Amino acid sequence: MPTSAERLAQSLQTLNSLGDEAQRIFTQLYPEAAQEAAQAADQRAARGLSLGPLDGKLVSIKDLLDVAGQVTTAGAKMRRHSAPATHDAPVVQRLRAAGAVIVGKTNMTEFAFSGVGINPHFGTPGNAADVLHIPGGSSSGAGVSVGRGLVDIAIGSDTGGSVRIPAAFNGVTGFKPTQARVSRDGAFPLSYTLDALGPLARSVADCAAADAIMAGTIPQALPPRSLQGLRIGLPQGLPWTDCSAEVLAQTEQAIASLQAQGASIRKLAWQDLMAAPAQLQSEGTLIAAEAATIHQQALVDTRDAFDPRVLSRMDKGRALTAPYYIQLLQQRQQWIARMDAAMQEVDLLLLPTIAITAPAIAPLLEDDSAFFAANALILRNTSIFNFYDLPAISLPLPRVAGSLPVGLMLVGARMQDANLLALAAAAEQALAQA
Amino acid sequence: MPTSAERLAQSLQTLNSLGDEAQRIFTQLYPEAAQEAAQAADQRAARGLSLGPLDGKLVSIKDLLDVAGQVTTAGAKMRRHSAPATHDAPVVQRLRAAGAVIVGKTNMTEFAFSGVGINPHFGTPGNAADVLHIPGGSSSGAGVSVGRGLVDIAIGSDTGGSVRIPAAFNGVTGFKPTQARVSRDGAFPLSYTLDALGPLARSVADCAAADAIMAGTIPQALPPRSLQGLRIGLPQGLPWTDCSAEVLAQTEQAIASLQAQGASIRKLAWQDLMAAPAQLQSEGTLIAAEAATIHQQALVDTRDAFDPRVLSRMDKGRALTAPYYIQLLQQRQQWIARMDAAMQEVDLLLLPTIAITAPAIAPLLEDDSAFFAANALILRNTSIFNFYDLPAISLPLPRVAGSLPVGLMLVGARMQDANLLALAAAAEQALAQA
Repeated sequence: MPTSAERLAQSLQTLNSLGDEAQRIFTQLYPEAAQEAAQAADQRAARGLSLGPLDGKLVSIKDLLDVAGQVTTAGAKMRRHSAPATHDAPVVQRLRAAGAVIVGKTNMTEFAFSGVGINPHFGTPGNAADVLHIPGGSSSGAGVSVGRGLVDIAIGSDTGGSVRIPAAFNGVTGFKPTQARVSRDGAFPLSYTLDALGPLARSVADCAAADAIMAGTIPQALPPRSLQGLRIGLPQGLPWTDCSAEVLAQTEQAIASLQAQGASIRKLAWQDLMAAPAQLQSEGTLIAAEAATIHQQALVDTRDAFDPRVLSRMDKGRALTAPYYIQLLQQRQQWIARMDAAMQEVDLLLLPTIAITAPAIAPLLEDDSAFFAANALILRNTSIFNFYDLPAISLPLPRVAGSLPVGLMLVGARMQDANLLALAAAAEQALAQA
Repeated sequence: MPTSAERLAQSLQTLNSLGDEAQRIFTQLYPEAAQEAAQAADQRAARGLSLGPLDGKLVSIKDLLDVAGQVTTAGAKMRRHSAPATHDAPVVQRLRAAGAVIVGKTNMTEFAFSGVGINPHFGTPGNAADVLHIPGGSSSGAGVSVGRGLVDIAIGSDTGGSVRIPAAFNGVTGFKPTQARVSRDGAFPLSYTLDALGPLARSVADCAAADAIMAGTIPQALPPRSLQGLRIGLPQGLPWTDCSAEVLAQTEQAIASLQAQGASIRKLAWQDLMAAPAQLQSEGTLIAAEAATIHQQALVDTRDAFDPRVLSRMDKGRALTAPYYIQLLQQRQQWIARMDAAMQEVDLLLLPTIAITAPAIAPLLEDDSAFFAANALILRNTSIFNFYDLPAISLPLPRVAGSLPVGLMLVGARMQDANLLALAAAAEQALAQA
């Protein structure tokens, strides 16, 4: 088995061979610091010592998390020359302390405000399965860095799906925790209410280990769980509309595999619960209001510096009234209580992570209305569970020839993240065996 | 010692003798239910049984808390014919379970939105020390019901001072807890961010017992505390400006008494901390924005039904933007962190509860600008500690001939409510002995 240092060297060599594409995936690389960390991990391993499951793992960090001494760009041109961070964000500090080899920082949508992954300033990394297609966002480089095998684990943020979307589009696993479990200090904010930090990786186990470290808890091996009799609900309504034929077919195939292992699958008449987040926010979203607050000054002073497609959505937030926003927060609490009660009926929810596979980049670059339509559809299913603050994971379905990757979303009860991860590992195994 | 039933009968008889004034203090009376509760407490006592320190105590409830089977008017004409509450609010339920004798519900400012205590719909109860003067608000009837000795304990709500102000004006003790300690379910809201429920009583011990019950904890006897070496800070700046000569003189007398008992008094150069809450909200308050949200529909449909002085302030909240409000919430969190750090320097803060004694009712009824000026001055000191979410208590200073009651505010560290109450009991004793 190659050492951590060997694997790092291999990754850096691959990146080198990628030319400009490397810079569209990583905004910054830390080869020396990473090499030192990898060697230290290898030395520990040679002595039979280990800092735990992340020791020596190659990890990338979304460029909205502070890394000491480095600029946090948040994918924005206007932040390229801002002051370097003085400290690691707590999650970065915890990952480092757990032996993670921080390879570099990954590209993202400007200020994390889109699910597509196009960035006019830093370029758009191509999808790991097909470079002509979008990577998904906002954690675009995160998804590609794992999808291409450049790192073991990528740390992203998820406000409306920004971890799960690039995971699904690039054929990897992505986990969004219940918000309060993971500190967001040192993370450039998009939405105070909805931002959550989570990992992308090639297995549920790696996601679970990274999540435990990020949450400041002790990583535990995932307890083996059976699918026998597991109550899996398919929430009917919005998430199943406008899905591509390949997404529907592969999702149905996955459902059949889980059912074959004894899972009890049933449709849930939850049309109201699925429709409410978008309906309540039809006049303007929590994200738009909060992003407009965070960028209040720049939205007046340096409008030209924004990605115009980010700018136009932030502008919508500026115009919202305080009572509209306050009512939205109150209604959200009421709907969260309804959802929490409803979740008692099932062990898991299952639905497509995204209605479609990754579209081609070029048409979305050219056409604003195509971009906004794609963005809305891509974020539609994932964002429901930011609204309800439920833990959710996207698993890659077995690749089908001629199809780009498809993700399957499993959703657990609030704060029951460990249970979701254990069940997701059981589902992962069942899908691999099918 | 008279029984609970005898004391209740005495109170009801006094109320009967007050004529119309009784209805300005209490919006509702529950003589039969109260008598049953008092008799039950007396029977327990005769057997040597007790439900604890509130067993058999006479208690009034501000008319924004749900009492099963009764209309919650929140002091508003427009709610007079609304549906009766189906359940006791949790705090009412807890008080009842602790043996409290619920005498009735007390009058208040419409929707709790003023510190003066004038109510054009239900009338304005006269101050317990001089009926021609205002009772203070918004828990006007609460303050008068304790001040006149009609009940032992009154339950109020405090969003900007609505417990501490009527306590100070009526010569009794009033306690506002750290917000999160006491459930606000079943309380008609004014501000989601700032509302807190607390007791008024004739002693710190009664306030502490009621607070423990309301918070769902076990009441404990207050541990004896010495004033020797106690670090009491006087936060300089705003709270000491525009104070009446009698308030300043009596406050200085109190400081001298505490100092004589060994307290270490020092001035704190906290001008910024004291000024920030008003400065940050100079374009509109959290309360206005949140009240405008709660009454959104009525502010369009039934404007005539409002107290015009409440209406005009709610209208200000309607016009605020979401980014203004969100930024205010974020800034508040930053200032709370600063204040929490600063509070490490002292054991208590000490300042006048209100800059003035209760003004006469008549001039404030007549003149809007006099009303708004008085309202702002009355709320000024107390509201600082709703903004910082610190526990705060108003103690009545020893009455001085020719002066209306003056309150002394003591403020503790966040969530250290039990410590504040124990220290306040020590101060109460020192002031009584002086």
